Amino acid sequence: MDQLIVIKIGGQVIDDQEKLDRALAGFAGLEGHKILVHGGGKVANQMLGKLNIEKQVVDGRRITDLESLKVVQMVYAGLVNKNIVAKLQSLDCLALGLSGADVNCILAEKRPVKEVDYGYVGDVTEVNSSILNTFINQGITPVICSLTHDGNGQILNTNADTISTEVAISLTKYYKVSLIYCFEQSGVLANLDDEQSVINELHPGHYQQLKAAGKIYEGMIPKLDNAFRALGHGVSNVFITHFSSLNSMSDIDKITATRISLFERI
Amino acid sequence: MDQLIVIKIGGQVIDDQEKLDRALAGFAGLEGHKILVHGGGKVANQMLGKLNIEKQVVDGRRITDLESLKVVQMVYAGLVNKNIVAKLQSLDCLALGLSGADVNCILAEKRPVKEVDYGYVGDVTEVNSSILNTFINQGITPVICSLTHDGNGQILNTNADTISTEVAISLTKYYKVSLIYCFEQSGVLANLDDEQSVINELHPGHYQQLKAAGKIYEGMIPKLDNAFRALGHGVSNVFITHFSSLNSMSDIDKITATRISLFERI
Repeated sequence: MDQLIVIKIGGQVIDDQEKLDRALAGFAGLEGHKILVHGGGKVANQMLGKLNIEKQVVDGRRITDLESLKVVQMVYAGLVNKNIVAKLQSLDCLALGLSGADVNCILAEKRPVKEVDYGYVGDVTEVNSSILNTFINQGITPVICSLTHDGNGQILNTNADTISTEVAISLTKYYKVSLIYCFEQSGVLANLDDEQSVINELHPGHYQQLKAAGKIYEGMIPKLDNAFRALGHGVSNVFITHFSSLNSMSDIDKITATRISLFERI
Repeated sequence: MDQLIVIKIGGQVIDDQEKLDRALAGFAGLEGHKILVHGGGKVANQMLGKLNIEKQVVDGRRITDLESLKVVQMVYAGLVNKNIVAKLQSLDCLALGLSGADVNCILAEKRPVKEVDYGYVGDVTEVNSSILNTFINQGITPVICSLTHDGNGQILNTNADTISTEVAISLTKYYKVSLIYCFEQSGVLANLDDEQSVINELHPGHYQQLKAAGKIYEGMIPKLDNAFRALGHGVSNVFITHFSSLNSMSDIDKITATRISLFERI
């Protein structure tokens, strides 16, 4: 089975042109099959602010009304995605920007209203891995923004960690898949105040301990839940690392990162 | 040689959801190979207004500074393109939204500054017809917004009529191509005040006469120049018609439209 790397970039990497350029240079240099997944970082918040649309967040998740969705859609699929794609072309990477609506590649259902109405937020129901695989075999690098669709004409906002996870899982049918969440820290920290305290390997028991002790910050929880879900559904390797690690990904065991594991390695 | 229809929609069709839905239903119903090209209509102007960015136009062409480019990029590639793609998916049309940067499909060079500095406006230099043809053969319908790139990481704004024309010309290598510019009138009017006065067939001599007599309005001139260019470069049929004609395109000789011809038919 061929290898495939799914890279998710987010956070400050998207917001800072110099950091983004470094991350994309690293990504373009990766050999073999690869997919990039990105969110919109603070750019979307800034645009919401400029347009006087109030941002609402519950439990670290954005609530997306119709006006916010338009802005998110513009920023993710228009501004950020096309800037990334254009940059990758200049680095000889044959990038193809995709939302979930394009070639029907990621279907979702609007999240049912329980305690909270998240608005136009989609929970992934199906990834069209066949067409993504076809593109990859044609030498195309999919660059997927964090938008899905419901099949009835409605675009939906979906967390980029979730998209990268579901895309990675779906492609285990064709590839040995590694999933790397890149952001502005070198991994999961044992001590939130010490950037050097990267946990080398995190397994479910350790994760529950840290969570119980309040040592995992809120934004990291869905990322780690996604990470364990990926491993439980056939993804071979999951790492959380700094975006600058993309430049040395060829020897993944040498980079500073948190490897997520289902079992404690002896 | 198989047939291919390149449809360009613009103007009020983009701005009005009900009109857009009708146009897309017509487009989705077209049999055979097809490509849709769209601009952003007044949506981009509205967004520029909301963000207090002044719109500048010279000779019917927008001047695109960096701030305007961001907005145009967001509206064309993010808002309008993804809304169209999601709608087409709901109509069982396997649409793939593309800017010129995606899979490097349309290269352009920033327009050289002569009397006017048009800013981040691109003149098309190359269409990657091979990859568009590959997609079409996979049953994919490209939906192209009016953005190109320079190959060095810069997105550029390019007129949607020009994009549809260059895409149509490039695909004459593989197909017998018809190019249809759809907008809110049934064709080129002999009398600007009479919507019924559609010219059935327009050839270069007649066009020059009308232009000299001031009977062609400004926005129509680049469209007609593009139309004649397409015919001169291998496109088999060029029509200008109302977007509602998309519903009866199967018998193209019966729709009300202006057929553009290089020679006067006897």
